[in-house]
Amino acid sequence: MDLYKIKDPSFLKELSIDQLKDLSMDVRKFLIENLSSTGGHLGANLGVVELTLALHKVYESPKDRFLFDVGHQSYIHKILTGRAEKFDTLRTYQGLCGFPKRNESEHDVWETGHSSTSLSAAMGMAIARDLNEETHSILPIIGDGALTGGMALEALNHIGDEKKNITVILNDNEMSIAKNVGALHGALGRMRSAGKYNRAKDDLEWLLKRIPAVGGKLAQAAERLKDSMKYFVVPGMFFEELGFTYYGPVDGHDYNDLLENLNYAKKTEGPVIIHMITQKGKGYQPAESDQKDKWHGVGPYKIESGEKIKSADAPPAWSEVISETLREEARKDKRIVAVTPAMVLGSKLEKFQAEFPDRLFDVGIAEQHATTLSAGLATQGMKPFLAIYSTFLQRGYDQVIHDVARQNLNVMFGIDRAGLVGADGETHQGVFDVAFLRSVPNIVLMMPKDENEGQHMVHTAVHYNDGPIALRYPRGNGTGASMEETLKPIPIGSWEVLEEGNDAVILTFGTTISLALSTAERLRKEGTSLRVVNARFIKPMDESMLHTIMKEKLPIITVEEAVLKGGFGSSVLEFKEEHNYTSWIKRLGVPDRFIEHGSVDKLWEEIGLTEENLINQVKAMTITKQRRA
Amino acid sequence: MDLYKIKDPSFLKELSIDQLKDLSMDVRKFLIENLSSTGGHLGANLGVVELTLALHKVYESPKDRFLFDVGHQSYIHKILTGRAEKFDTLRTYQGLCGFPKRNESEHDVWETGHSSTSLSAAMGMAIARDLNEETHSILPIIGDGALTGGMALEALNHIGDEKKNITVILNDNEMSIAKNVGALHGALGRMRSAGKYNRAKDDLEWLLKRIPAVGGKLAQAAERLKDSMKYFVVPGMFFEELGFTYYGPVDGHDYNDLLENLNYAKKTEGPVIIHMITQKGKGYQPAESDQKDKWHGVGPYKIESGEKIKSADAPPAWSEVISETLREEARKDKRIVAVTPAMVLGSKLEKFQAEFPDRLFDVGIAEQHATTLSAGLATQGMKPFLAIYSTFLQRGYDQVIHDVARQNLNVMFGIDRAGLVGADGETHQGVFDVAFLRSVPNIVLMMPKDENEGQHMVHTAVHYNDGPIALRYPRGNGTGASMEETLKPIPIGSWEVLEEGNDAVILTFGTTISLALSTAERLRKEGTSLRVVNARFIKPMDESMLHTIMKEKLPIITVEEAVLKGGFGSSVLEFKEEHNYTSWIKRLGVPDRFIEHGSVDKLWEEIGLTEENLINQVKAMTITKQRRA
Repeated sequence: MDLYKIKDPSFLKELSIDQLKDLSMDVRKFLIENLSSTGGHLGANLGVVELTLALHKVYESPKDRFLFDVGHQSYIHKILTGRAEKFDTLRTYQGLCGFPKRNESEHDVWETGHSSTSLSAAMGMAIARDLNEETHSILPIIGDGALTGGMALEALNHIGDEKKNITVILNDNEMSIAKNVGALHGALGRMRSAGKYNRAKDDLEWLLKRIPAVGGKLAQAAERLKDSMKYFVVPGMFFEELGFTYYGPVDGHDYNDLLENLNYAKKTEGPVIIHMITQKGKGYQPAESDQKDKWHGVGPYKIESGEKIKSADAPPAWSEVISETLREEARKDKRIVAVTPAMVLGSKLEKFQAEFPDRLFDVGIAEQHATTLSAGLATQGMKPFLAIYSTFLQRGYDQVIHDVARQNLNVMFGIDRAGLVGADGETHQGVFDVAFLRSVPNIVLMMPKDENEGQHMVHTAVHYNDGPIALRYPRGNGTGASMEETLKPIPIGSWEVLEEGNDAVILTFGTTISLALSTAERLRKEGTSLRVVNARFIKPMDESMLHTIMKEKLPIITVEEAVLKGGFGSSVLEFKEEHNYTSWIKRLGVPDRFIEHGSVDKLWEEIGLTEENLINQVKAMTITKQRRA
Repeated sequence: MDLYKIKDPSFLKELSIDQLKDLSMDVRKFLIENLSSTGGHLGANLGVVELTLALHKVYESPKDRFLFDVGHQSYIHKILTGRAEKFDTLRTYQGLCGFPKRNESEHDVWETGHSSTSLSAAMGMAIARDLNEETHSILPIIGDGALTGGMALEALNHIGDEKKNITVILNDNEMSIAKNVGALHGALGRMRSAGKYNRAKDDLEWLLKRIPAVGGKLAQAAERLKDSMKYFVVPGMFFEELGFTYYGPVDGHDYNDLLENLNYAKKTEGPVIIHMITQKGKGYQPAESDQKDKWHGVGPYKIESGEKIKSADAPPAWSEVISETLREEARKDKRIVAVTPAMVLGSKLEKFQAEFPDRLFDVGIAEQHATTLSAGLATQGMKPFLAIYSTFLQRGYDQVIHDVARQNLNVMFGIDRAGLVGADGETHQGVFDVAFLRSVPNIVLMMPKDENEGQHMVHTAVHYNDGPIALRYPRGNGTGASMEETLKPIPIGSWEVLEEGNDAVILTFGTTISLALSTAERLRKEGTSLRVVNARFIKPMDESMLHTIMKEKLPIITVEEAVLKGGFGSSVLEFKEEHNYTSWIKRLGVPDRFIEHGSVDKLWEEIGLTEENLINQVKAMTITKQRRA
């Protein structure tokens, strides 16, 4: 059928199972074709085609609430709710968001991006529903990976206790973003092979029937045993223990199985969990046969072969440079171990894992645990390197303060995806870490200007033994800098003048250095000389250089790809205030609002990180030579 | 025996059970007597006397690692490791810390304060031990309340999966800080009555033995059943599911039971959980019979009667004022619900709970869930009020950003214990929230000058419908302000001049207002007139008033009981920079280091929040009239 003509999902009510199967094929074709040019989360969506169609057939969105945990698996939901025509703009500037978005559709009732939030939100919605004496269904759709996030477990504990009517769709693809980890995964595995348990139950009843119906001790024992068995012999007992009724395992690609169980669930009082087994990438050979989850989030690809379309000869990815340097250091220093919350692939730790299988710990989606685990390691003299995306470090914020920084432990943080991340959008922008880390005592925070400095910073972190040290680096590929052979430590708190100049000073770090340098070049041609400083230590700052600059009374412009409120620029303002300087300072960076998805270039334009803006700023401060109010 | 003579716990090895019992009595007497004058966490410690003695008898600290989760139950451990003589300084300035502290003793291997961190840290220590080929034991001691914290569950999942040798001491007092909640609590309850399950296992074996040993289907079924049963019929299956060997329940006050199970655990490979049932307050009648956990953390009391020694006629507690105003508002507005992470008592929500049992949600120690639950409620048009201590809001930081602020939902935050908290010390200081919240878009952040303004701010929050709004208030009692009858909304972002003056301006809020006013009074006598501004909105600030002040070019001093790095003062610096003003600004507040325990007065002195310091600052900026560098 023509997916572009779908306005809302009500037409599904009339479809037969055969028609649903045909529609599934159309949806898969649509996804494979569209994403081959836009990129996106192909694997996850191919895995939930039947599941999503079945949900929209049995329930009534938006009266019934679907909450897509993480949310990258909501594409089919978007198609069914009238958004097929926007898929050519997927994850582009002002285009269709890759996650549920409340301003896109009334069917998107909960926005996600980070994992493990859907159960808590569902509980909030259920409480509101019951207080308002309404009766609609509430269905969080959560993967097996997201389920191990602490807040999801906190929510299960609460939901099970309060006995609210919530139907949890557990989408178990045995994979999550990467190979799943954790004991819970083992428990799910046992549920998957539930035949065994059902047989155990059958066996017991069969046996009990054969025991002679005598009185006395035997009969009592048999009765007591039956009572206990009722409680014990159920699959999914982990969930039953927490107060849920468990249905499953359900074949998540079989409409009969799906519809039957959803209809059961609809009639069941109290919290229900439906355990659906799905296959990521289902229906597209290259993604189906993907063992390493390289089809989780993809760029453009050739449909026939699945070959990725890449720009030729790109410099190595930042994550790759950092992780490979760490691997090199780990050969020389046995104290080094790597910790990652489910991002072995994302943070390019595969080679580290291959070489040091005993020294890499993938803890699953569990950022709080990952942070304090690292603290625990450090108390024993180890040098843990926690590779974690900036946006996900927000989950470990209390642990950074309370466990790592307060005890001043030698934990190294590799803050990946720092700055604007582009297509994933506002849920994933790594723009808060500068502000939230620099207000915490004891932490060293740095960002390299290129991958060569990046490798030296890894070395610096390894040889720093006075407390926590964090190295932030952006998403994507490096600058193509040539790499020095010998690693050397960078003096803590030392900045570097990249370009001399005496009309104004730019203080910046990381990604925005190239902007400063190209602006300086343009201005130099016009006769204005900009000093460009690589403020590679965000904390502590290079106070000696700051004294020099402020004594010169040159105008100062700080530039950062991070929030302005409380950011690096503010720390320069603080320095000025502490030392009673009068320098004229202006700050460029991320304004006080959430920044949506789009290419990083577009986003820089939107927030004024452009040569034009920087030139105007410099001119306002130098050419007019006018002091302000 | 004379507890003051204990240097280390090695003497315990020689003690008989009778001697241990005698020692337990001595320890209890010591605690009851000492805490009657210093105050402290009496109930929790009385509950773990036998448990702690048994641990130190069976294991060898510090070679074996004890990690006290939360840590307020470590007093007996402190006595046994040579710190009895310091108990008269407990929780006072530069005195004995109320939590484990690594610089106090080599026996304190992990510092706590916040809950649920011990399992992650233990896992880190276990990994380090195994990599270093050592063999010591690692024993986190965690309460049933702390176990429901998400990060504890994340850690269980990881430990169970990796099969590390860790012995978890689950101290189940069926209470935690207050009445426990959550489905897990139900599961623990079922384990407590484990007789049933052990009997089931016995029954099964007994039955199976009586089934005629015939071949064929019956025998096969019986065999299969036995296999399954091995897996099913164990108590503590929740933990067994996660890969732990479960021992228990153990009577945590019975040395025979304790020693037997600890010795079992010592010989068991892989992760073990020993489920100990203890009674909070054991051995002190007033605490034992305490149903409401009022003996959790206490001030001085009379030993005989248990009567609390209180200063007469103190103004009402801040928490009380806020919660009672909320209750009043809840009568008029059905959208209002209250959410608390295990702090019904701490946040004085008992009366709210009694009046609106269906509209108060105590989610247990689960700050992440509490925050996103509130977000979920807000999506449905409710007005949730999340009462949460400042220091614990750190646990919900990502949820504040990602779920509440990003979706701009009408969640009200009651940030309790904001500022320095005194005796609990550095783990609990509520000094980061200003910095970490003001860098998040969409949030309104305010703090009242007294309880009367506090009640108006609750009203303001209830009537604000443009996104999240947070009201922070300190620990302890209010100022004794007279309360206006009629609640009125305060215009968002409006400040208030409390004292006119034209020599300098103090911008401050909340607790430090009294300091500013008394300083102004002293200076006025000397002929210097200070303008004192109640900067009650930390974000958004009163820009109109700021423009006025900065145009007057008066020296400005900001004063805050919060971190200086990125704090309120910095936001005034940012305003000045944005609008090109030249005002001379100085900032007073919490410096860039962790602040230990002690009375708030002492701590203010330590960090320079004193009249003297403020006077010197004002004089430096006014009397010298000199402009800086």
